[in-house]
Amino acid sequence: MNEERLFGFAGGTSGEWRVTGQVIIRGEPLPTASHVRVRPLAYVDAADALPGQVWLLRGARSHERYTNRAEHQRLSAAAPALNRVEATSGALIPIRKSAAWWALAQDERRTIFEERSRHISGTLKYLPAIARRLYHSRDLGEPFDFLTWFEFAPADAATFDQLLADLRSSEEWTFVDREIEIRLQRESALSMA
Amino acid sequence: MNEERLFGFAGGTSGEWRVTGQVIIRGEPLPTASHVRVRPLAYVDAADALPGQVWLLRGARSHERYTNRAEHQRLSAAAPALNRVEATSGALIPIRKSAAWWALAQDERRTIFEERSRHISGTLKYLPAIARRLYHSRDLGEPFDFLTWFEFAPADAATFDQLLADLRSSEEWTFVDREIEIRLQRESALSMA
Repeated sequence: MNEERLFGFAGGTSGEWRVTGQVIIRGEPLPTASHVRVRPLAYVDAADALPGQVWLLRGARSHERYTNRAEHQRLSAAAPALNRVEATSGALIPIRKSAAWWALAQDERRTIFEERSRHISGTLKYLPAIARRLYHSRDLGEPFDFLTWFEFAPADAATFDQLLADLRSSEEWTFVDREIEIRLQRESALSMA
Repeated sequence: MNEERLFGFAGGTSGEWRVTGQVIIRGEPLPTASHVRVRPLAYVDAADALPGQVWLLRGARSHERYTNRAEHQRLSAAAPALNRVEATSGALIPIRKSAAWWALAQDERRTIFEERSRHISGTLKYLPAIARRLYHSRDLGEPFDFLTWFEFAPADAATFDQLLADLRSSEEWTFVDREIEIRLQRESALSMA
């Protein structure tokens, strides 16, 4: 029924991604894990704890909430796939936005997101290097609203840092009240769909 | 953390709402229940099955996805609260939209939803009589995308039928591929938050 809609990100002592760094950007911390394992979940409550697991974050792949048709086509043309062989660096960045953000109407959120913060048009130039995927967590009652996921080649790490700097200096980011940056290195064979 | 975000709707042999009729509008049926019980869920997986339960549908109260600020204010001014003493009639109508709908971009969905189907502006006139609440289920991996909930006085049943007829004759509804109408009568004291 869910066609790999739901995913669990387990932080613990094992997993195909090794944690190379964790920075609390804003808000409450998260316990430190040495590895992250990413798994599709058959059901939202299907995630049995792994040995050594210290946290589990869940999110759903979902439809786009702000992107118009023209933007969608530009993004699709520019965005690389996940699981590129050379993309052995990664990042999991869980984000929560404030109650003030969620109280805004759709047109107000869109205006801040794109017309003022250029979340889509401003980050297009990074897309050939940086693969990304967004998971939605808010409706699941999770501690974060979004799990953002990135994959890139080690040589593109500075490009990725610039992407993060651009977003974090935007008006949209003034509504982010919890953010944790977990940098990753792929350890084992490709396993994520 | 979730401030009564998640709710479970359990169909079975007990509950504060008695089922007075069930109609398969489109798509796969749902087993018949004599009663529906509505409960907030502390976690998405916190719903233990009740004795006699034949189905459980889960959904999250969430932010508005299409409404602009002006529309939000008109809706808020017109909409009655849930749990009015006189509103002893109700309906639970789970709905699923097609893959074609979800593949549309935000601007395309908005255009169909409001500019062409007048989902907001066309139903405002029913709001003084009909209380409604939308629960989002799609990101939870549920069999329906939305659980729509309505409460009204028995004398307003024809008004409610007209609201349903308006929506079902809209372009938006050509994207609905599963819909079940469960009509309800309140049996016991008010219990829903």
